[in-house]
Amino acid sequence: MTANSINKSLHKKNHALDNPLEQLINPRSIAFLGASNNPMKMGTIQALSIIKDGFPGQFYPLHQTEKEVLGYRAYQSAFDLPEVPDLVMFVLPAHLVVEILEDFGKIGTKRAIVITAGFRETGEKGLQLEEKLKEVADRYGIRFLGPNCMGILNTSLPLNVTVLPFKGQPGLLGMVSQSGTYITQSLDYLAKKGIRFSKAISVGNEANLDITDCLEYLGQDEQTKAIALYIEGLKDARRFLETARRITPYKPVVAQYVGGSSAGARAGSSHTGAMAGPDYLYDGLFKQAGILRVHSVEELYNQGWVLATQPPLQGRRIAVLTNSGGPGTAMAHICNQGGLEIPTFSAVLQEAIGPHVMPFASTGNPVDLTVQLETSVLSSVLPELIMKSGEIDGLVIHGLMGEGFMKALYPHLTDLLGGISEEDLIGQFKVNMETPLSLPAKYGLPVIFSSFFGREDNFTAAYQDHNIPFFDGPEKAASGMVALHHYNLIRKLALEETNQLPPQSAAAVKIIQAALQKGQHLLDEHSSKQILAAYGVPISKDALAHNVEEAVAFASKLGCPVVLKGCSAELAHKTGHGLIHLGLESEAAVQEAFDSIIKAAGQEIPVLVSKMEEGKREFMGGMVRYPGFGPCLVFGLGGVYAEALRDTVFRIAPLSAQEAREMTTAVRSADMLQGFRGLPPVDKDALAGILQATGNLALLHPEIAEIDLNPIMITGSDPLVVDALIVLRNQ
Amino acid sequence: MTANSINKSLHKKNHALDNPLEQLINPRSIAFLGASNNPMKMGTIQALSIIKDGFPGQFYPLHQTEKEVLGYRAYQSAFDLPEVPDLVMFVLPAHLVVEILEDFGKIGTKRAIVITAGFRETGEKGLQLEEKLKEVADRYGIRFLGPNCMGILNTSLPLNVTVLPFKGQPGLLGMVSQSGTYITQSLDYLAKKGIRFSKAISVGNEANLDITDCLEYLGQDEQTKAIALYIEGLKDARRFLETARRITPYKPVVAQYVGGSSAGARAGSSHTGAMAGPDYLYDGLFKQAGILRVHSVEELYNQGWVLATQPPLQGRRIAVLTNSGGPGTAMAHICNQGGLEIPTFSAVLQEAIGPHVMPFASTGNPVDLTVQLETSVLSSVLPELIMKSGEIDGLVIHGLMGEGFMKALYPHLTDLLGGISEEDLIGQFKVNMETPLSLPAKYGLPVIFSSFFGREDNFTAAYQDHNIPFFDGPEKAASGMVALHHYNLIRKLALEETNQLPPQSAAAVKIIQAALQKGQHLLDEHSSKQILAAYGVPISKDALAHNVEEAVAFASKLGCPVVLKGCSAELAHKTGHGLIHLGLESEAAVQEAFDSIIKAAGQEIPVLVSKMEEGKREFMGGMVRYPGFGPCLVFGLGGVYAEALRDTVFRIAPLSAQEAREMTTAVRSADMLQGFRGLPPVDKDALAGILQATGNLALLHPEIAEIDLNPIMITGSDPLVVDALIVLRNQ
Repeated sequence: MTANSINKSLHKKNHALDNPLEQLINPRSIAFLGASNNPMKMGTIQALSIIKDGFPGQFYPLHQTEKEVLGYRAYQSAFDLPEVPDLVMFVLPAHLVVEILEDFGKIGTKRAIVITAGFRETGEKGLQLEEKLKEVADRYGIRFLGPNCMGILNTSLPLNVTVLPFKGQPGLLGMVSQSGTYITQSLDYLAKKGIRFSKAISVGNEANLDITDCLEYLGQDEQTKAIALYIEGLKDARRFLETARRITPYKPVVAQYVGGSSAGARAGSSHTGAMAGPDYLYDGLFKQAGILRVHSVEELYNQGWVLATQPPLQGRRIAVLTNSGGPGTAMAHICNQGGLEIPTFSAVLQEAIGPHVMPFASTGNPVDLTVQLETSVLSSVLPELIMKSGEIDGLVIHGLMGEGFMKALYPHLTDLLGGISEEDLIGQFKVNMETPLSLPAKYGLPVIFSSFFGREDNFTAAYQDHNIPFFDGPEKAASGMVALHHYNLIRKLALEETNQLPPQSAAAVKIIQAALQKGQHLLDEHSSKQILAAYGVPISKDALAHNVEEAVAFASKLGCPVVLKGCSAELAHKTGHGLIHLGLESEAAVQEAFDSIIKAAGQEIPVLVSKMEEGKREFMGGMVRYPGFGPCLVFGLGGVYAEALRDTVFRIAPLSAQEAREMTTAVRSADMLQGFRGLPPVDKDALAGILQATGNLALLHPEIAEIDLNPIMITGSDPLVVDALIVLRNQ
Repeated sequence: MTANSINKSLHKKNHALDNPLEQLINPRSIAFLGASNNPMKMGTIQALSIIKDGFPGQFYPLHQTEKEVLGYRAYQSAFDLPEVPDLVMFVLPAHLVVEILEDFGKIGTKRAIVITAGFRETGEKGLQLEEKLKEVADRYGIRFLGPNCMGILNTSLPLNVTVLPFKGQPGLLGMVSQSGTYITQSLDYLAKKGIRFSKAISVGNEANLDITDCLEYLGQDEQTKAIALYIEGLKDARRFLETARRITPYKPVVAQYVGGSSAGARAGSSHTGAMAGPDYLYDGLFKQAGILRVHSVEELYNQGWVLATQPPLQGRRIAVLTNSGGPGTAMAHICNQGGLEIPTFSAVLQEAIGPHVMPFASTGNPVDLTVQLETSVLSSVLPELIMKSGEIDGLVIHGLMGEGFMKALYPHLTDLLGGISEEDLIGQFKVNMETPLSLPAKYGLPVIFSSFFGREDNFTAAYQDHNIPFFDGPEKAASGMVALHHYNLIRKLALEETNQLPPQSAAAVKIIQAALQKGQHLLDEHSSKQILAAYGVPISKDALAHNVEEAVAFASKLGCPVVLKGCSAELAHKTGHGLIHLGLESEAAVQEAFDSIIKAAGQEIPVLVSKMEEGKREFMGGMVRYPGFGPCLVFGLGGVYAEALRDTVFRIAPLSAQEAREMTTAVRSADMLQGFRGLPPVDKDALAGILQATGNLALLHPEIAEIDLNPIMITGSDPLVVDALIVLRNQ
C-alpha cells in the first residue's frame, strides 16, 4: 500500500458522510491565513483555538514575513505547502481573500471558511467582491462557509476555529446560526449551563454553503442528537422545508426566527444580507417542517439540550417533585398549559411515598417534600418509586441541592461548628451520585431538573455532566418537558403520506394560455372557477349567459333564487358598480338584473348566473407567492368578521392531505368546523381538499401569481367556493 | 427624659409607617423559639441569619433546657424576658405554638412570625389549630405572618430571618411571595444576577396578615421602588384590587400567577390552602389593577429589578447597540413586538457614530460594532452620543465584556504572552468605569444591558452593583424595556377618574322584590330589560302584550317587522319551543304568532312584542359572581361565531368609564368597533356605558346572581341590548 492510498483510505474513513460539510468540519489538515504572533489579533486568537483545543490534524499558518507562527512553521503561499490541505481558513482583509482562494483552488483544496467580513453586507462593492469569491470557488469546485462568519466547532474531532475556548466533553446538540455570537461568545455561558455542542456552525453571508446545507449535514451526523437553528431569514425556504421535513421525523429540530419585525428585518439584513419575511410565513414553515419554534436564544439552547439528551416522552403523564410548593405549582401550570397532565398518583403509589415525606406533605402529585438536608429522598427514593410505578411518562424535579446550599450556609455556620473549613463542612455531606444518575437510563424516562444553585452544587454539576438537563428555574424545566411532548406529536404525525401532484389539466392550460395571449392578467370569475373545478375544487353551480334569454334559461335550470354578476376580466375587481344582483327570485327579476348589468358595464359583457348559496359559516382561502417561499396557501375565517379578526394561517404548497387537514384546524375559529348551534359538522376532508388542490394548481401552473377563494361557504356540511379570482403573473 | 420615653420616641421613629407590617419588619427586639446549638436544625439556621446578617436590635432565644443559645442568653418563657419584645418568631412544632403565643400576648408583644408548618395545609386538625392561633392573636391584638412561611428579609435594617444568608447592599425591589422558596432559596441565584431585595416577605397560609397587607406596606415603604408578587390564589381579590390600584400609579407592581391550571390549583391549594381561580379572572384583575403580568419567576425578578432601578421610559424610541448582529436583531424583534420603535438615527447622529465603528458597520440603529477589544466605544462613546442626541428614550446594549472575556481567553493566550498570569493579563485591560456608570443618571434615560458573561466580568459586576440591570440574554434586556413601556402606559392611564355608584333605582328594587316574593329565580326578558333600562342601559323597544289585540296594537306602534316572544320566567330558558317568532311583517302575521305562542306555552302567558332589530355586528356582555372577586363583568364577540371563537374578557366591577372603554377594546375582535366594510364606527362610550351600568347594578343589588346581555346588537352606530336575562341568588 502506498502512502497515497493509505491517505485516501484514511480520508474516506474520516469523511464518512457524502455531504460537502463533512470535509470542512472533519479536515485532516488546515491552512490558515490571518494568524500572527500578535495575541491581540482575532486571527491569532482563532488559530490558538485550533491549536490549543486539540485539533489532531496538520496545521499550516501562512504569513508573508514570519518564518514561524504560534510555534508552527509558516508558509508564504499555497504553493509552498508540503501537502494539499483539506481546508483553508481566511481571517484576512476582504480584498486579499479572492486571489489567495484561487491559489488554493489551483493546488486542489476543496473547502474553505471565510471568517473575513466586508462583503455583501457592506454594500455594492462588497457584493461585487462576494460575487468574485463565488465565481472562483465555483471554478475550482470549492465549497465554503461565510464570508462574514465566526467559523465552526466540532467537539468530537476536536476542532474549534471560533474565538473562545471550548471546555468539557463533546456534546450532543448541533447548532447552525446566522449569528456567530451564538456559537462563540456564548461558550462560557453554555459551559455554566452544562450544555455542550456536538458541532456548531456559523454560516455568515451564506455565499456558498447555506443554513440548509448545514441542517442537512447535522441531520446525518451521528454525534448530533438534536439541532438548534438561529434564523434571521432564508433565501430558499422551500429547500429548507424539504430538508427539514426529512430530518424531523427522526431528529428533533428547534428554531428561533427573529426577522419578522420591521427593525428586526432591517437589523438582520444589514447583518448578513439574508432575506427576512413575515413572521406568519415562518410560523407556517416551522409547523410544516416539524420544527419546534422558540422565542429566545436561551430557550433555543435549553430546549435543544433537552431534545438532544432525553429519550422520547411516550405519553402525557408528568410527575412533579419539589422541595417547595411554589416551584411545584409553577411547573404544574406550565405543563398543563403545554398539553401535559399531572395525574394524581394511585393510592398504592401514594402509600409507598408516604413514609418518605413529612406527615403533612401532599403525596398526590405534585409532591412537595419541603426543605430537607437529607437529599436522597428527592434524588433517588421518590424518583425510583415513581418511575417503576408505570404511572407516569416523565419527571420534572425542582430543588435538589447539596454542596451549593451548604456553601451558601457556610459563613453562618462555621463558628458554631468550631471554625470548620468549607471543605470539611461539605465533606460531611458527600453523597452517592451513582444511583441518582443511573435512574433515568434504567427506566428510560425523560427527567429534567431545576434549582437555584449552579455548578457550585454537586447535584447540578453531576447531572449536567451526565447529559441530564438541570436548569436555573422551574418554568425552564417544565418548558423542556413540553418541548419533548410537542416533538412527540411531530414524530407521530410525520409517519403519514405526502402529496402527489396530479397531472396538469388541459382545460386549465387552455384557459390560461388564452388569457395570456390576450394580455390579460386577471381571469374573470367564471374562468377562475373553471380552472379550480378542473382540479376538483367544488364550486357553486353557474353558467355564463351572453344574452338575456340565456340568463333566464340558466336561472330556471339552476332554480331560484339566483345571483347575476357581470363577468369580465377588466371588471373583475369592480364589485360596487351595479354589476352584482343577489337573491333574484323570478324570471322578471333576472331579466331586469341582466339589463341593469349591461347598462352599468357600458358594454356587452357576459353575465354569470349562479345559484344563490346560503351558509351560516364562511371561510376564505387563497394562494400567494413569496420570494424564496414559492406558492403559499392561506386559509382563514371569512365573512363579515374576517377583516376584524384576522384569523388566518399560512402554509407552503404542496400540502399532503394530512397537512391540509391540519391547516383547517390551525385557525382560532376551528371550532366552527364542528357541529355547533344546530349546524352539522363540516366535511373536513373536502375543505382540506380545496386547499391541497389550490396548492397543486399553483405548482402546476407557474403562470398563476395569486388565487383568491372568498368566500368558501359551508352549505350544510359541504364547503363550496362561491367566488374566486385568479391573477396571472406579469410575463 | 425617662428610659421609657426615649424608647417610645425611638419606637416612633423606627415605626414610621402606620401599617401593621411596620413593627414586624422593623422590630427593635425579637424573641425566637426553635433555635438551639444544633446547626442542623432549621430554627438554628434561621436564628443564625438574624445574628450573622447584622440585626441591630435585641435578640432573645427561648429554650427549655439550654442556658445559652448561639452565644445569647436563653430564656425559658416569655415571662422571664427583660423587656416586651416587638416580635416573636416560631420555628417550633405546630402543637406548641398556640400556647406560647398566648404567653406573648399576655406580656404585650403585638407581632409574630410563625414559620412552623402543620396547620390548615395539613387538613381538618391543622385547620382547627390555625383557627385557635387566629383566635389567640385576635384576643391579644397580635398581627402575625404565617403559619407555614419562610419569614422576612429587611435589607435596610438589616434583618434576615430566612434560611440563607443575604449578601450585598440593600436593594430596591420589594417582594411578597406565597412560596417561601422565592425569597430564600433564590438568594444566591439573585446575588449572581445582581438583583437585590429591599424587603421580601413570605406570607405562608395568610391566617392573619395577607398578601394584600404586605402589598400595602411595600407600597408605602420608601426603600422599595417596585414590587414583585408571586401569587397562587387570592382570598379577597376585590381588596387586593383596591389596594393595588392605589399603588400602581406611583410604584410599579409585577406579578406571576400560577393557580389557574387544574394541577396548578391542586398544587397551590395543598401548599398554602389559598383559593385559586380561573386564569382569565386574574388577567382582568391585573389589567384593572395596573399590574404587569409575567409567566416565570425569572421574569418576575428581572422585570421587577428593571422597574425598581430604571427611570420611566418617556417614549417609545429605543436604541439597540451590540457587538454582534444576532443579539441586535433579536432585541429589535422583542422591542417591536412589545410596541416599541427602533427609529433610524438622523443623518447627523449617524455621521457622529461613523468614525467609531468599523467602516462597514450599520450606524442606523441597531448599531452593530462587531467584536472589539476596545470596550469604551460600546460602554461610553456611542451611548453618550445617542443619549445626548435627544433621538431616543431608552437603550438596550448587548455584548459589553472585558475581564470575563479575557479570563475565558487566558488559557489559550498565556504561553504566547510568556506565561503571563491571569491577573496580569486582566490588569492590562483595566478600564475607567466612572464614565460608563454615570451616563444613565446624567441623561436620565433607562438603559439595560445583556451579555453572556456573568459577574466574573468587570462590566457585568459594576453595572449590577450600580443598579443598572445586566442580564444573560438579549431578549431579557429587551423584555425589560418592554416592561418599562407597559408601565408607562399604566401610569398615564391611572390619572383618570373612578366610578361613582348611582343611586339605587326604586323601579328595579320593586321588580326584584316582587320576583323574590314569588320565589322566582329567573326574571323574564321584559323584567330583566326593565331593570337594565332603569340604569340607563339602551334596550330594544318592546311592550308586553296580554292579549292578541294588545299585541297587534303594539306592533303597529313599533312598526313592522316585529318579533314576538312568549315572556315568562318559567320559560325564560326555553327558546326552542315555538315561543319566538321573528320578522313579522303584518297584522295577520302578528295575530298568528300570538296564538301559536299561547298554544306552545300551553297556558296564557304575556307576549313580548319587540321591534325586529337588524345589525351586522353582535357582541355579548354579562355579569357573574366569583368567590373572592364579587361581581365580575364579561364582554365579548356575540353572534354565530361567538361560541367557536371564545373572544371574551373579564373585569371586576365597578368599572370607571375609562376601564369600561378599555374593556371593549381588549377583545381580539375590537377592530369591529371601528368603521369597516361600510359600517359606521360603534359608539364606544355607549357600549362602555352598558358594561359600567351592568357592574353598578350588580353592586347595588346583591340579590342578583347573574346577568346575561346577549346579544348586544349594533344598529348603525348604537349598541342595543336585544335580549337579556337576570338570575337572582338562591335566598
